[in-house]
Amino acid sequence: MPRDGSFTIDAFHRGRFHLVQPAGKGHRAGLDAMLLAGAVPGNFSGRLADLGAGAGAAGFAVAARCREARVVLVERSPEMTACARESIRLPENGMLAPRLSVVEADVGLSGRERRSAGLADRSFDFIIMNPPFNAAHDRATPDRLKRQAHVMEDGLFDCWLRTAAAISAPGAAIGIIARPASLGEILTALSGRFGSTEALSIHARAQSEAIRVVVRARKGARGGLKFRPQLVLHGEEHGFTPRADAIINGRATLFDD
Amino acid sequence: MPRDGSFTIDAFHRGRFHLVQPAGKGHRAGLDAMLLAGAVPGNFSGRLADLGAGAGAAGFAVAARCREARVVLVERSPEMTACARESIRLPENGMLAPRLSVVEADVGLSGRERRSAGLADRSFDFIIMNPPFNAAHDRATPDRLKRQAHVMEDGLFDCWLRTAAAISAPGAAIGIIARPASLGEILTALSGRFGSTEALSIHARAQSEAIRVVVRARKGARGGLKFRPQLVLHGEEHGFTPRADAIINGRATLFDD
Repeated sequence: MPRDGSFTIDAFHRGRFHLVQPAGKGHRAGLDAMLLAGAVPGNFSGRLADLGAGAGAAGFAVAARCREARVVLVERSPEMTACARESIRLPENGMLAPRLSVVEADVGLSGRERRSAGLADRSFDFIIMNPPFNAAHDRATPDRLKRQAHVMEDGLFDCWLRTAAAISAPGAAIGIIARPASLGEILTALSGRFGSTEALSIHARAQSEAIRVVVRARKGARGGLKFRPQLVLHGEEHGFTPRADAIINGRATLFDD
Repeated sequence: MPRDGSFTIDAFHRGRFHLVQPAGKGHRAGLDAMLLAGAVPGNFSGRLADLGAGAGAAGFAVAARCREARVVLVERSPEMTACARESIRLPENGMLAPRLSVVEADVGLSGRERRSAGLADRSFDFIIMNPPFNAAHDRATPDRLKRQAHVMEDGLFDCWLRTAAAISAPGAAIGIIARPASLGEILTALSGRFGSTEALSIHARAQSEAIRVVVRARKGARGGLKFRPQLVLHGEEHGFTPRADAIINGRATLFDD
């Protein structure tokens, strides 16, 4: 990996892990990835797949908080998987490295291609995903990495959830972070695959509309949709609310479990 | 209408209007109807249909708060429309009566039958609905009125939203109160008919899951789903939170408009 100024090493969870990321281009990880990782219960101990992992922020955050989780970062961009592999090699991440691995593959692969890439059927206990979400008007962006990470394609959630359903074990959970506008498509795509769905809206401030929704569901479960209490990121004062700060830094979970 | 003990007259909005309701049987109006009415903006001044109005609580609440709204209560149960008509005749409701009327019809009617019943195409500026929501295990209830009001039928939201789309004018709004578990079905049924949808979850307490969701959308609009800040009904102390109390009593609206 180039050691010039085009990459940065950023600290997360108050220094508990570090990530190599492209500087000033590509999709840089941050809040969304930390919130998504917060959908995984504190006592989770199985195999987790981070689909469309980018540089691996969400998967790293799960590995840092859940000491027995084994995390597979699935990402199609060679530039981003190079970052993820470099992050695994960082001395600062030495404690996590044995439980982290990278699969360079498109989440949309199916059948034999998907299995050959290293994503075996029914082999994961938890799936997390932060699918690309910018609409078609972003296709014109000149930055190829950013375009790959952000462009929304027709039926993307259905495509990704088909893969998630195939590679997850019976009773496995799934966690998704998305724009609120995508909730209808997500619920439709979950239907028949995952159930007992829980939704949690994330608001910048208590009186503003949601900027994200986190959805969690369980494979083969049959319960109806529930709404958890909203998460508010910022209060009256500067910075994050105590609850948001705890979740973002791996000291609490979104669903309190 | 019988003047025996089988009916009650209940005050709403701190006495601003009164409703005749069956005592101890049927679906008695309360919180859901007041919250649903709160989805209508304070300055609303057109024609509103309350679909599946029961005794008319939500429609009465809109008429009491929006001084120029004309409200049509649509209800198939003769027992409930009798109550609604009696409520319109109550001296206490004299100020509202000229703006309230009753259509005894099944919301599921279509085409000529619906128009003949008094529900003309494109004739309403706002539709509100609190569709029956109990699942099939409630069908065994011995109370016929309660059964009519509560039993969920397959595709109910699609059926009711087809009627709502037909009778609403271009640009008209719709407000729905339902269980959170119905949101997926509601979003699917809105699709292609109503857009720029807003959802607002209602929680008994700040840390408990939602008990209801209120959905509002606009006919022919194209915006994506948004989540408004949640409404919490009860705080640390006895009774309602100030905001919930204001909405339930017609002094504020759910969407602050």
